[in-house]
Amino acid sequence: MKHIKTPQDIADMARGAVFLGTGGGGDPYVGELFLLQQLEEGRSPMIVTADDVADDAFVVSIAGVGAPTVLVEHLVSERTLLDLLARAEAFYGRKIDALISAEIGGANSMFPLALGARAGIPVIDGDGMGRAFPHLEMTTFSIDGITATPTVMIDDLGNVATVTTPNDRLAEDMLRALCNTLGAMVLGSFYSMSGKQMKQSAVRDTITQTLEIGRCIRESRETCEDPVSGLMTYLNDPKRGRYARVLFDGKITDVTHETRDGWHWGAVSLQSMTDANDKMVVEIQNEYLAARRNGKTAIIVPDMISILDRETAEPLTAEMLHYGLRVKVIGYSAVPELRTEKALKVCSPRQFGMNEDFLPLESLA
Amino acid sequence: MKHIKTPQDIADMARGAVFLGTGGGGDPYVGELFLLQQLEEGRSPMIVTADDVADDAFVVSIAGVGAPTVLVEHLVSERTLLDLLARAEAFYGRKIDALISAEIGGANSMFPLALGARAGIPVIDGDGMGRAFPHLEMTTFSIDGITATPTVMIDDLGNVATVTTPNDRLAEDMLRALCNTLGAMVLGSFYSMSGKQMKQSAVRDTITQTLEIGRCIRESRETCEDPVSGLMTYLNDPKRGRYARVLFDGKITDVTHETRDGWHWGAVSLQSMTDANDKMVVEIQNEYLAARRNGKTAIIVPDMISILDRETAEPLTAEMLHYGLRVKVIGYSAVPELRTEKALKVCSPRQFGMNEDFLPLESLA
Repeated sequence: MKHIKTPQDIADMARGAVFLGTGGGGDPYVGELFLLQQLEEGRSPMIVTADDVADDAFVVSIAGVGAPTVLVEHLVSERTLLDLLARAEAFYGRKIDALISAEIGGANSMFPLALGARAGIPVIDGDGMGRAFPHLEMTTFSIDGITATPTVMIDDLGNVATVTTPNDRLAEDMLRALCNTLGAMVLGSFYSMSGKQMKQSAVRDTITQTLEIGRCIRESRETCEDPVSGLMTYLNDPKRGRYARVLFDGKITDVTHETRDGWHWGAVSLQSMTDANDKMVVEIQNEYLAARRNGKTAIIVPDMISILDRETAEPLTAEMLHYGLRVKVIGYSAVPELRTEKALKVCSPRQFGMNEDFLPLESLA
Repeated sequence: MKHIKTPQDIADMARGAVFLGTGGGGDPYVGELFLLQQLEEGRSPMIVTADDVADDAFVVSIAGVGAPTVLVEHLVSERTLLDLLARAEAFYGRKIDALISAEIGGANSMFPLALGARAGIPVIDGDGMGRAFPHLEMTTFSIDGITATPTVMIDDLGNVATVTTPNDRLAEDMLRALCNTLGAMVLGSFYSMSGKQMKQSAVRDTITQTLEIGRCIRESRETCEDPVSGLMTYLNDPKRGRYARVLFDGKITDVTHETRDGWHWGAVSLQSMTDANDKMVVEIQNEYLAARRNGKTAIIVPDMISILDRETAEPLTAEMLHYGLRVKVIGYSAVPELRTEKALKVCSPRQFGMNEDFLPLESLA
């Protein structure tokens, strides 16, 4: 059991969450502000390891649903968080014993911590992805049959909706439609489950990982010539089935953005720092989905792509990219839970409209 | 207290509901089929007058939400109706004592009768409009502060959603969005209210009116040279503040249809049978909203326009109109409840995007 006790912990964690957001997932900035305020008021989130949670505990995810562009300007309201908690407990008919993040990448790393700190509910060190993904059915919970609904969602004006469906893909569509009518930002409770189910399905220790990634980047800046190197050393952990590679070192020569069907589509074109004919294109669909070097796939979803500022190793979300930036493209293998046959049915390249199968980073790069 | 006892009663009522649907409201045909089946099984809906309902009774509206084009091909399922009843009673936490139609025009005249017949719940002789309108906030209930939500809605596959908001215009947007993700057809419970509230706000005796309109058209066909005349005699009732006029007698020279923003938009052009220079245009936005004769407004919403086959007096919905049809355009004053200052704030021409104020039929025609 540990607490996040200092503003530096929160800053490290937010940076790590952006890294694991693989370009998407929304900016954790407003959640960071909320947590800082809680620290000032003497409250900090209590983080527990999955195994510390009783089998019969009642666990839910708290998450924001909405457009990242709205999220970043939409402060988190204490009143709304507490209202959601009260409504969720009434809706499920029981007290919530622990919270867990549905996606550790980006903004949704912060909402459980924010409510956990404010209401004194433990937050489990783990999540349902180990990264960010745009759909409710793309979590290890959903893959293991723990449905996203019944869900209750609210906005800051007191509007409330609930959805109950056995189909998480349909739940995604229903929630997205509701969210769009409610100003593109709502908070909801998802994946209600027992402690036992959580222990079987959660991706473990990912809050710790955000902290460590953030800390590693910060400390590397002070000690290394190349702060990316320190991070690569931390990330590469073949014993745990995790591989990391610097896939490209270059400058951005073009970025296209399009908002269509509620998604952020685009592509980033890069040119090597040393060879003008060596090029990479990173494809965006909310997150970075695939990177092709001179036409050849270097990494593909669910494996993870992060784009870092090449000098500071600051992780950059898709909205931050622009012509002329010098960056390094990092490939990081997905958590093993997302590389199983069962998981690839919902998060393989084909689920994102690409006509190809998943190949692991370590065999491609 | 009366029953609808024969297939002829149901046919009369459905025809009357199409007349009051003013071109929109959806085809009551599938509801008619369901009621016929109930009659065959020995069940008929029990119709009660508003005053027969106790002040502390719990009254709700049952309505279909969806695209009329889907509705007409979507049979009403007994299982879904009973499932909705069970879920609504659980959601509101009390037994439903009586049902009332939210809109008597079109398909939503039938759903409360269908469930009422099947489950043995009385159906109140009245509704919230005396016609059809496309939005939840355009009912006498909503106008009097009885909100459409909390609502529970379900589809035939067991997907369930609830919405709670103080704003009926927002409720409309949320439900429309949900409905679109659920195959454009759901059933829901709306406007939960006490018997006392219902008696203050309901438009009275409109089930009886559908029956009488249908019967009048049917009987007129057998006895009158012009079946429209018999209907006009029935409708004109200045003592009750109701006026009816034949506004135009002609043939359709053009019809335009467009489905945009979830609405059915269009216009019907007519030419007089006797004078080729005498023309009328009827504007459609789901319902017939306004008729202009040679550029001059002859009737405008919330007053009611029906287009009848000029030989048989069969009421025609907007989808049925086509080039060459000989028709009579009927103007009928709205129920007095919709002509008040308070009501016009939600159902005046300006609420439908027209840059003009309401003028009553009897001063225009």
